[in-house]
Amino acid sequence: MDQTLLMLPGPTNVSNRVLQAISKNVVNHRSVIFGEILTETSELMSKMFKTNNQSYLLTGSGTAAMEASIANILNPNDKVLNVIGGKFGERLRDITKAFGGKSIEFNVEWGDCVKPEDVKKALEDNEDIKFVTVVHNETSTGVTTPIKEIGDVMRDYDALYVVDTVSSLGGDHVDVDRYGIDICFTGSQKCLAAPPGMAAITVSDDGWKVIDKVDSNTYYLNLKKYRDSGAGTPPETPYTPSVTLIYGLCEALKIIDEEGLDARIKKHKIAAKATREAVKALGLTLFPKEEVSSSTVTAINMPNGVSDSELRGTMRNEYKVELAGGQDHLKGNVFRIGHMGNTTYKELAITFSALEMTLKKLNFDINLGVGVAEVNRAFI
Amino acid sequence: MDQTLLMLPGPTNVSNRVLQAISKNVVNHRSVIFGEILTETSELMSKMFKTNNQSYLLTGSGTAAMEASIANILNPNDKVLNVIGGKFGERLRDITKAFGGKSIEFNVEWGDCVKPEDVKKALEDNEDIKFVTVVHNETSTGVTTPIKEIGDVMRDYDALYVVDTVSSLGGDHVDVDRYGIDICFTGSQKCLAAPPGMAAITVSDDGWKVIDKVDSNTYYLNLKKYRDSGAGTPPETPYTPSVTLIYGLCEALKIIDEEGLDARIKKHKIAAKATREAVKALGLTLFPKEEVSSSTVTAINMPNGVSDSELRGTMRNEYKVELAGGQDHLKGNVFRIGHMGNTTYKELAITFSALEMTLKKLNFDINLGVGVAEVNRAFI
Repeated sequence: MDQTLLMLPGPTNVSNRVLQAISKNVVNHRSVIFGEILTETSELMSKMFKTNNQSYLLTGSGTAAMEASIANILNPNDKVLNVIGGKFGERLRDITKAFGGKSIEFNVEWGDCVKPEDVKKALEDNEDIKFVTVVHNETSTGVTTPIKEIGDVMRDYDALYVVDTVSSLGGDHVDVDRYGIDICFTGSQKCLAAPPGMAAITVSDDGWKVIDKVDSNTYYLNLKKYRDSGAGTPPETPYTPSVTLIYGLCEALKIIDEEGLDARIKKHKIAAKATREAVKALGLTLFPKEEVSSSTVTAINMPNGVSDSELRGTMRNEYKVELAGGQDHLKGNVFRIGHMGNTTYKELAITFSALEMTLKKLNFDINLGVGVAEVNRAFI
Repeated sequence: MDQTLLMLPGPTNVSNRVLQAISKNVVNHRSVIFGEILTETSELMSKMFKTNNQSYLLTGSGTAAMEASIANILNPNDKVLNVIGGKFGERLRDITKAFGGKSIEFNVEWGDCVKPEDVKKALEDNEDIKFVTVVHNETSTGVTTPIKEIGDVMRDYDALYVVDTVSSLGGDHVDVDRYGIDICFTGSQKCLAAPPGMAAITVSDDGWKVIDKVDSNTYYLNLKKYRDSGAGTPPETPYTPSVTLIYGLCEALKIIDEEGLDARIKKHKIAAKATREAVKALGLTLFPKEEVSSSTVTAINMPNGVSDSELRGTMRNEYKVELAGGQDHLKGNVFRIGHMGNTTYKELAITFSALEMTLKKLNFDINLGVGVAEVNRAFI
């Protein structure tokens, strides 16, 4: 199998401990033994979300959770404020519209983030907003949104607060109950460092009140069914879940819990700083404003005179390090380094060694070692 | 991990070869190497479906595929003929209704199957049926439906032919192109013997014509997006797929391909006959009419004076063999033995040894060995 180092904003490198967990025997998903695994995994998820509410595991991609977060609380023509600063903000708008919602877009320039007072103004300007969607960590631009401060604003309004933490949970501060988040969701393959294919979602009491009044727009992702099955004896999922991936997610969450969530977040912030400093030392420039840059993925402007396939292709083919490209109109204009999940100085030392050699090969005038030096400086 | 033998109608026992495949390193889902794996897996799926059409892999349960099969071809108020003879037929009706379809139910007594002439009559009696849903193998009752003969009827009508082969593909004859099936789908954890969490779907040209005219009722399972991403270079899925489960599904399909699909189906039919004969030799009775009984799961009436928890509990706790109970109104009234996937005489010899000991413990007057003898007779 391919031994390329994944420095993507998901899927991230999965530890051997997790890979061993997913290769255990499949058990009956309607048995007491699986009910215990489901309970343990859900409880660990709630601990990661920092919520007293129940978490539910969805067999699907992060996009399944995005759909679940909207399709269960939306009636046709409901007004929704979609905060958009990248591809995933757009996706939440697209899902809102797909189910007949009236999307009020608040667009932020890609590379910048929304200000809490902008959300306040939009809520003042538009009556009857049913819910607000915010992407905590916009993977496409490498930008973090101040979800705590937006939560402070949201407290004065009835609108539900829906937050996408697909690429931040476990790598940046997410405190669902304290921030007043009503619906929060994440994916397995980002900072949690489990294999892709699972998502998780948690809902506040206010969220459930709305869900109970809405005729769900989805059958497979109808959260009422997840609640009912989850409350059974033994607890179950409504449909056959991805048993082996739940083993893996459970193990990945145990690893984070043993490490300590706060220590894990701190490690992500150091890795992010290391990456930014190394990038700058090599004469490259960050795509987002540095003060709003992400703790889990760094977006970098493609240097002049180099194509995406030259830069990322050399990284991949010569040096076996896989970086992400730009998405949509950023395709070819940026490249992205994911530093999520299990990333330590080791992976970043490899990545910047590879990047330095790549730039040298592409005739850039750089001093070998200066990128890696910044990585080391950040991690001392 | 639990070493209980799973004799369920899914999830089924997964081979070590497949378990090893899923524990390989996760690769970038948007890379050339993964595109090759996706292509190989999709092509093997089409070979299993016996279709020249493309197959698409969905990250989700079989129910996700059920939703995809309907939500992409249904406009509100479209008339749909749902053939129902058990829980999964009901689920296709529920999904039809959930998306605003006008369901015309053709109900068959649980334990029996629909006759092709009944489908013909329903199509004659009701104009403008847009599509017909049929469950090939009704897991809840252990009944097989004659999908070839219904396909012959369907040829005279414009309605699309939607067939659920979740618990039959790889264990009974499914010949999508020859039977004229427009939309066919399956799950990973049944006869294919991969872990749960993946589904696959294939669509005919006529099916795509309808899909192209319908505004999909689902975002996550919008098949147009799967078609677009699948046609890319490299081929991709629209959202991050379950990479490790695709490794597993690919390996499971290779195993079937090496064994030969027809040989595999024959093995299932022998296992089904062995199970039925052993059941009868023990003085138990089949729930469905024998002539329509399934090749992949056998439903058995609960013997008088015994509770489900006594029978299945003893099997599980004393003898480490997990059988399935009845669903909905059959709960407590039937139990089910799955003989799907990798089942050989070995698993059935264990299962009937355990069942004989269980019945003896519960004071049934049986001759030890008579069930296992029938298993051996069938497999000689």
